[in-house]
Order: sequence, then C-alpha cells, then structure tokens
Amino acid sequence: MDDAADKANGADGAQALASTPYDRAVAGFKNYWYPALGEREVGRHPKRMILLGEPIAFVRRGRKVYAVQDECPHRGARMSLGKDEFPGTDTLACRFHGWTFDLRNGACVAALTDGPDSPVVGKVRIRTFPTEQRKGIVWVWMGRGAPVPLEEDIPKLLLREDTLVKHRRRVVYGNWRYHAESGDGGHFQMLHRDSLVQLTNRFFAHLKDYAPVLTDEEGDDGPPYLVERTGGLARQAAYPGLGEWPPNRPWRFASQPYGRSVHGVSTIAAVRLPGLLRINHFPVVGALYYEWYVPIRDDAYVYFQASCHWPRNPLSRLITRLKWHAYWGPMKMGRFNDQDKAMVRDSTDLAKRRGHHSPTPLYRPDRYPLDWIAYANERARGAAREG
Amino acid sequence: MDDAADKANGADGAQALASTPYDRAVAGFKNYWYPALGEREVGRHPKRMILLGEPIAFVRRGRKVYAVQDECPHRGARMSLGKDEFPGTDTLACRFHGWTFDLRNGACVAALTDGPDSPVVGKVRIRTFPTEQRKGIVWVWMGRGAPVPLEEDIPKLLLREDTLVKHRRRVVYGNWRYHAESGDGGHFQMLHRDSLVQLTNRFFAHLKDYAPVLTDEEGDDGPPYLVERTGGLARQAAYPGLGEWPPNRPWRFASQPYGRSVHGVSTIAAVRLPGLLRINHFPVVGALYYEWYVPIRDDAYVYFQASCHWPRNPLSRLITRLKWHAYWGPMKMGRFNDQDKAMVRDSTDLAKRRGHHSPTPLYRPDRYPLDWIAYANERARGAAREG
Amino acid sequence: MDDAADKANGADGAQALASTPYDRAVAGFKNYWYPALGEREVGRHPKRMILLGEPIAFVRRGRKVYAVQDECPHRGARMSLGKDEFPGTDTLACRFHGWTFDLRNGACVAALTDGPDSPVVGKVRIRTFPTEQRKGIVWVWMGRGAPVPLEEDIPKLLLREDTLVKHRRRVVYGNWRYHAESGDGGHFQMLHRDSLVQLTNRFFAHLKDYAPVLTDEEGDDGPPYLVERTGGLARQAAYPGLGEWPPNRPWRFASQPYGRSVHGVSTIAAVRLPGLLRINHFPVVGALYYEWYVPIRDDAYVYFQASCHWPRNPLSRLITRLKWHAYWGPMKMGRFNDQDKAMVRDSTDLAKRRGHHSPTPLYRPDRYPLDWIAYANERARGAAREG
Repeated sequence: MDDAADKANGADGAQALASTPYDRAVAGFKNYWYPALGEREVGRHPKRMILLGEPIAFVRRGRKVYAVQDECPHRGARMSLGKDEFPGTDTLACRFHGWTFDLRNGACVAALTDGPDSPVVGKVRIRTFPTEQRKGIVWVWMGRGAPVPLEEDIPKLLLREDTLVKHRRRVVYGNWRYHAESGDGGHFQMLHRDSLVQLTNRFFAHLKDYAPVLTDEEGDDGPPYLVERTGGLARQAAYPGLGEWPPNRPWRFASQPYGRSVHGVSTIAAVRLPGLLRINHFPVVGALYYEWYVPIRDDAYVYFQASCHWPRNPLSRLITRLKWHAYWGPMKMGRFNDQDKAMVRDSTDLAKRRGHHSPTPLYRPDRYPLDWIAYANERARGAAREG
Repeated sequence: MDDAADKANGADGAQALASTPYDRAVAGFKNYWYPALGEREVGRHPKRMILLGEPIAFVRRGRKVYAVQDECPHRGARMSLGKDEFPGTDTLACRFHGWTFDLRNGACVAALTDGPDSPVVGKVRIRTFPTEQRKGIVWVWMGRGAPVPLEEDIPKLLLREDTLVKHRRRVVYGNWRYHAESGDGGHFQMLHRDSLVQLTNRFFAHLKDYAPVLTDEEGDDGPPYLVERTGGLARQAAYPGLGEWPPNRPWRFASQPYGRSVHGVSTIAAVRLPGLLRINHFPVVGALYYEWYVPIRDDAYVYFQASCHWPRNPLSRLITRLKWHAYWGPMKMGRFNDQDKAMVRDSTDLAKRRGHHSPTPLYRPDRYPLDWIAYANERARGAAREG
Repeated sequence: MDDAADKANGADGAQALASTPYDRAVAGFKNYWYPALGEREVGRHPKRMILLGEPIAFVRRGRKVYAVQDECPHRGARMSLGKDEFPGTDTLACRFHGWTFDLRNGACVAALTDGPDSPVVGKVRIRTFPTEQRKGIVWVWMGRGAPVPLEEDIPKLLLREDTLVKHRRRVVYGNWRYHAESGDGGHFQMLHRDSLVQLTNRFFAHLKDYAPVLTDEEGDDGPPYLVERTGGLARQAAYPGLGEWPPNRPWRFASQPYGRSVHGVSTIAAVRLPGLLRINHFPVVGALYYEWYVPIRDDAYVYFQASCHWPRNPLSRLITRLKWHAYWGPMKMGRFNDQDKAMVRDSTDLAKRRGHHSPTPLYRPDRYPLDWIAYANERARGAAREG
C-alpha cells in the first residue's frame, strides 16, 4: 500500500471515529420533545432561551404559548424584544422595524414601517417551534418536520392524570453528555455520601455484578430505557492495606428502599433518549424523579428536574407542595445535585484540553456510559449540528 | 473551463465580495477627523483611548492637547502611564525606562536611564496624531499623511461661532456599521415610540415614497449628506385582519415639527462619512443633533453625541445648559438612544454567527442602508485595516 | 536558487527563529524546582494550583505535603475535590467514583465503587510531582525524571540554617518572561521613583558603563547568576533643551547602600534560571530578596516573593516579623512591585498584538534582557511545552 492510500485510510479512520451520532451530538439530539420552561414563566412579553444552539422566543397569546426563532429575518433583532402591536391576534412584531409575524405558522403578515402594501408581506417567514403545555411545563419540539406525539418522548407516568409534577431548572456549565453519562449507580454512594440530606442514610460499598440492560417496558413508563441491574449490594468491603470501606458511622442508620417499585418502576436509575434520567424514590420514598439535560451549546445546558408525586387527598397534596418548596427543591434537587455539576465541569474541561470527547472505559461500572452511548448511537433521531 | 479555473474564479468572486471599502471598514474609515473626548477630560496626566484599533494617549501641555500612540516603541509600555519629567516642555516620558518624546512631532529627545549621550536619541520616533480643539471637543485626525482642514469633516453649523455645543460619549458593544445603517426614519416610530420622552408625541404610521438622496448642499452644513426624502407621512394605516396601526391614544397629542428647517436643514435624518448622523429638532425643537460612531474595534465603538443650540441671550444659554444636564442628556441622549444599542448588538451577534456582515435588502426602507453603503464605497478615503 | 528552495529556506529561517528554548518557554522552563505555596496553606483537604500549565493538587498527610496531577485518569474529575477515605494512609480518593491513589508513587490502590477485586487496581497511575518542604515553603519539581538536589536550584543563602525567610505570592496577568527581562537596574529609578516607600530616597540619574556579567560565584549563593556591573552612578545629568534630571528635591535625602555586600552578595540585581531575581538590601538594608516568576500559562504567572533576614537574637527576630507583616510585605513587596505588573501587562499585550515575543534591543541597558535570554538559551534544562 502506498503513502497516499495510508493517509486516506488514516483520514477515513478518524472520520469514522468522529462520525457517530453521539460524537456529533455536541449540542444535543434534535427531533425530540424537550421541557423548556414553566407555563407561568411565559407571559405577553416574550422570554428568550437558547436550546440546542437555537435562540428561541417564548411568548403567550391567551392560553397558548408559542415559540419562534429569536432572530428577526430582517436585521437579526431579537424577537424577544418584540411587541404585541395587535392585541387579540396571535402575532408578534419586531421592535426594530415592525415586521409582524403570525405566531401559528411564522408568516410575515405586516411590515409596519413600510405600510400595508409592503411587498415583504407573505414572502418572508420566521421559524416556529411546535409547543405543548402539560403538567405546568412548556414542551418544545426541537426539530424540523412534523413532531411525534408528545407521549412518545415524555414519560407516561409523568403525564398521568393523577400525577402531581413539580419542576425546577438551572443553566449549568458543561457539555450535557457528561451529565448523561454520569447517572450510574456507581457514583452515588461516593459523590453524594456527604451531602447534608444523606447524613443519616446507611450507604453500601458497591454494586455486585453490575449490568445495564436495555428494556422496552418497565411499569408503563414508556420504552426504551437503559436500566441498571445488579446482583445485589455489598454493604462493606475490605481493602487490603487500607481498611474497611465505608466506615461504620453510628449516625448512619436509615435504610434505603432499594428494590421497592413505584408504579411498576423498580430500578433505581434508568436513562433514555434524548438525555433523560429517571430515579425512583427521589426526592422522597414513593416519588419518581426525572431530569433532562437540555443542551444550550457545547458547554452549557439546562438542567431540568421534575419530580412526580401521587398524593392521596387534597391535604397530602398541599403537604407535598410545601415540602417541595421548603426542602426537597432547595436541598435535594439543589445542593445535592450541585455535586454532579462539578464533575460535569471537570470532564468538559478535560475534553477541551484533549480536543475531543472521550469516555475512557477502564473499570467495570463504565459499562453504563458505554451502553448508553451505544444505545444513543443506534436509536437517536438526529444530532443538533446536522442541520 | 477546467476545475482550476473554476476554483480561481470562485476565489476571485469571494475576494471581490469581501473587498469593498465598506466590507474592510470593520474598524472604521481612516483619514478622517473624529471627535475623541471633551477638552476638560484631558489634563497633565495622559488619558488612554482606543480609536480605529489604535491605542492613543491624550495629554495636555498648557492649552494644547496632544495625541500619541499609547505604546512606547521600546517595550510597549503605555505612554498613558508616562510622566511629565520636564515641566514646561511639550514632552512625555515613558514610565518604564524614561524614553522621552517630543509631543509635537514624536521624536525621542532623551532616554533617561541611559544618560544624555544615549545613542537612541533622534533615532526613534513615536506616532503622533494631529488634534484640534473646537467647541470644547478634542478632534483627532485618524490618518497617516497631512490632515484635511477640520472644516471638511466637521459640520459647519456645529463650528459656527454662535453655536452652543453640548456633547456626551459612551462606549457601546457592537460594530459601528450597524448603528450607521440604522438611522433610517423607518425605525423611529417603531423602536422609539414607547420611550418615556416620547410619551405624549403623536406618531405616524410610515413614510410614503421613501427615497434617500445624496445632496451636496443643505443649509450650509457641508456636503455630502445622504438625506431622506419622502412623499409625506401616513398618519395611520389599516392592516387587513390585524387592525389600525398605530392605535389612537388620547395622551399622544403633541405634534412634531416635520418639515420645519433649522438653519436651512429641513430633512429629519441625514448621514455622511465617516459615520455621522444628523437629526433636526432633537433633543428639542430648533436644535440640531449629530452623532458619530467612532470605531474602537470590530465589536465596540464610541457613541459620540453632540447637540447644537442657538440661545438668544445669556439667560437662554444658561437654561439650555441646565435642561441639557438635567433632562435632555440623560433622558433623550441616554435612555432614548439606549434602545438603538440593543439593535446594534443583535445585528452584530447575527454577523458573528454568520461569519460576515450582510445587510439584507428585503423591503423598501432598506434603500437607506443600501444607499449609505454605496455612498461610502464610492467616496470613503480609506478603511482602518488597510494600513 | 529556485522558488521552492527559497521558500524552504524562508520556512527554515522562521523555524530557527522560533525554536530557541526561550521562545518555546512560553509556559516556563521545566525540570526545575519551583516554590509553589506556603506549608501552612496545605492541609488534609487538597489545594488546586496550575503551574507550568499543569493542574496540580497539593495535599497534606501528616507532616508531608504531596503533589499529584489534579485530574483523575478516569473521567478527569479534579483530585483536589477528592477525599481522605482511609485516614492514616498516604492516599487520596477521587470524589467521583472513588478511585484511590497512593500519594507516594501515584499507583491506583483501590476503586471503591467497583469493590476490592476491581481489575483497575495496579493498572492505572496518576502523575506525582516530587516535593520538598524548606523554610516554610513547599517546593515542587516540575519535571518528568528524577529531580536534581534542591540545593542546585534554590539559593544557598535562603536555605542556610540561620536565615529567616518570609514569603508572599500573587497571581499576576502577563507572560512570566517580561517580568524576568525587566529586572535591570535601569528601570529602577524611573519606574519606582514615585513609589511611596521611596519618598525620601535620593535617586541617581543613570548607570555608567552598564555591563551584565555571568558569574559562577558571588558569596556562596550558588551559580550561575547574571549580575549587573557598572562603572558607577551618575547622580544627575543635563539634557540639552530639557533640563537637569532628576530634579533636586529637599525631601529626597536618604542615601542607598549601593556597593555594600550582604553575606558576600554585593551586586544590586542578579537573575538566574529558571526565572529568579535576586536584589540586595531589599526590603531593608542587610536583607536579600528573591522573586520567582512561576508560570501558570501563556499570560499568567505566580509572582512568588521571598525575603531573607538574619536577626541576631529572638527580639530582633520578632521585630523583623512584625515589620514584615505590617510594612515591608504590603508596602514594599505589594505596592512597590505592583508598578512592575503594569509594565509586564503592556509588554504581554504588545506581544499578543504582534503575534510573537520580541525584545527589541534599542539602547544600551537592553544588554540586560539580551544577555539573560542568551544565558537561558544556553543553559536551560527544558521548556514546559516540550513534553
């Protein structure tokens, strides 16, 4: 084989390496429904967000929340600075020169600074994003064609009529994939052990025979999830020359509900596309917890957390809400999950120094990120960068 | 035609596209007089500014304000940290090793840390920029050769002996060209309508038969300006399916002095090189207002605003000054013009995402930026990047 | 000679220019001992620093301070977030998944989330950096192979048993080389003259017959230093057309101890590899002062200052400490030396604009930086970027 052929092969190899959907999904997988923000956050004045690299203006007209590209096709002015010049219609006018768009389909219906006979009317269109409002959350379809039904992408247990959903969102530094790869049961008792809310919990040493499995059905929560299966927990382990770990602590006495199911969901952790982690019995026994990593760009994402509760009566509903606002939200979804953020930051910075994303499979629990990546590569609809 | 020729043509085409003077003028047009700062801002201790990409130290010696490159030719230390080591002479000494320069011509006249016989004396020169002081403003010639007379570049009405000039400057994010392109009458009633100072003003809907014209004479304000000509104003317009616009508001009753001239200047808005907008009857009826976009670098510029007043007696002069400081300055030149800044930011960010500057002509009022760009391309003296 | 050859020569020439060790030492010279931080700053919880581009976690176990790469080989998590999971052993566990390393040699001795039989044990290693603790300072060997004896790199007078060492460190913007090049006696009376602590000092005009000399022995402070030699000081100089300089000031009466030696060190300023400046009689007559420029990256470095004192009895020892904390530290090592920082910033910014590091030899005192660069090029062990 000659030099040129060698070179070509080398290039092809590198190409192949960089051409998996997961590698390209630096800014997320497109053609999925994502949670954007709370219904109550959107009013008549638009709100700007960037999701999967796209600047988007969310705005309310009546009961309906619309989403349009936050960039006027004329001079690039933010539509989120725009105004409701024709109250009662579902339109939004750009603040700069008054180009007015129909929020339902993006058509330019007026150019106010050019008069009703402006030739631009009907010729220009702004991109719109399909939205749905369910459980107090505005969901947005981050894709080009017609959206799939919301139920395909959003957990069925969350959408159930009797489910009380509370949510919380933050912008976090780092690439979303490092968070998605870090949901393994392995890190739990290490990283989160000294979180204040875990003070009294008895921890285990490690999982035995760790084996993630891709399953199409668990409860009725909608397939497919990559779930964790283990051969049980080692309560304590002896490390030669180092000692027993974890150490016994008299104040760690509370046992955890491993194995008990919530509406048929019995696995502790499970992950699914486009980057959605499910945990059971969190933030409280009997609850289900979901978190989405909604990419903003290469090194930022929205950390969107939602917990599902099934209160039995109005009083227990009220108490659940109170506990959520006073304790679970700030202490569990806040401080506890902040510990993950530092890890995502470090992995992101390492990838920046190295110039590429590279989960290094080195020990047995790394089967989790590797299986997740394989699952994503096989089934993902499309990466954000692909157009 | 073969592949190589195709390629060459393509490259040439791209070259041609990027090679208009206006495209190259990312950091402004050189070989013009620009307003730099107020006379009172400059004292014996130098003041640093960056204009058209050049760091400049402004310093006063007696009544004269000098401008020199803010970079010692020895080790790059800022001359604006320099000292007046020989009071009574028009020199400035670098703070680092005492290289001392004659401010009148830039010649190195001493190297204090090397003694009077230093071989460097007379061999090294620092770049100087010609300056003029008129109407309380320091004007600087941003070019290499001999400057043109100040009167060629500064409006005659501003320089008139009986003119009272007040000025104001701010550093703004964005490329200066987006501001220069945005002076069209079209944006006025849209962007600025809900400014607090416009609360009681009756607005029009749009201009009719909008036609910018390049004129060599209007009043005695010095040619050439690109001025706006219109076939009149539409007071209100009916948009099918949307409604009348603008809506009638009982609190909007004040009429505006369209058509009345100020010292022969009757057009509302006019623009001229190197990036100077003139508005009449602003900030008050009977005044003339000028604003310069003095580039700092690709995405920052000095927004230099000056208003001209003709008070009839000392008392009206005093009242004009008071009103300027208490109201017109902060409310009209401040808050009102802040609305433009957001638009410049958005257009700049769009250009960054797209990788090139591209005014998109899409509707009739875009004749204004297009004619301005054509005018600049035909008549500009030189772009800052050309050397 | 044909075109291709011309081109090749040109490229070679540029290559040669950029390939001196000093040019490559943008982030410092490796294979040297550097001062990192104070012994008291390091405890059981690790402390993160970046030195010569390497993130390093410093951590104490008993009396010993260890340094390891601040990046877990698994997922890149900072080891400085790690925990002491096995108290009593010299180990550090990563916070993310519990990979535990022996701090003495970097071997992975446990992977807590995978159990005692984890196959990763013994197969993975984290980089460690040799350290020494002397005079209250943690010294770190920034190299790959076995370190040289500490005494080769650290001044002997500083390490002497009867020496009282006080130190201080700050992170400074700029490339370390501009600071190393600026220790010449020339800048002293110019840049530092109006420092408050110099208020009463009589200054000289300039050095005569300035001649840096590389010497292998001065006192017992350990070779080699580039020291300054002069033919004496000019007290005042007459500049034709400008005047006498420096001017006589009645409040500048204090003479300075030029020529008097401290433990055999009689030169005012001297510099040695890897970037260490020595000044005598600073911050007080009879003291020796050392400052290291410890590179962080291209445009940041740790400015590490240490002064050596020889108090004769416990009382004078106490007074020395008090004076250091109350006056010499903040006023002399703080404010006085801040004047140098602005110069380093300016030279760094100039290099960024020009795209390369370029000391411009233009007048006689520039022999100092040029001789220092030649000395470094001839004798330096290795640049940080070389691997």
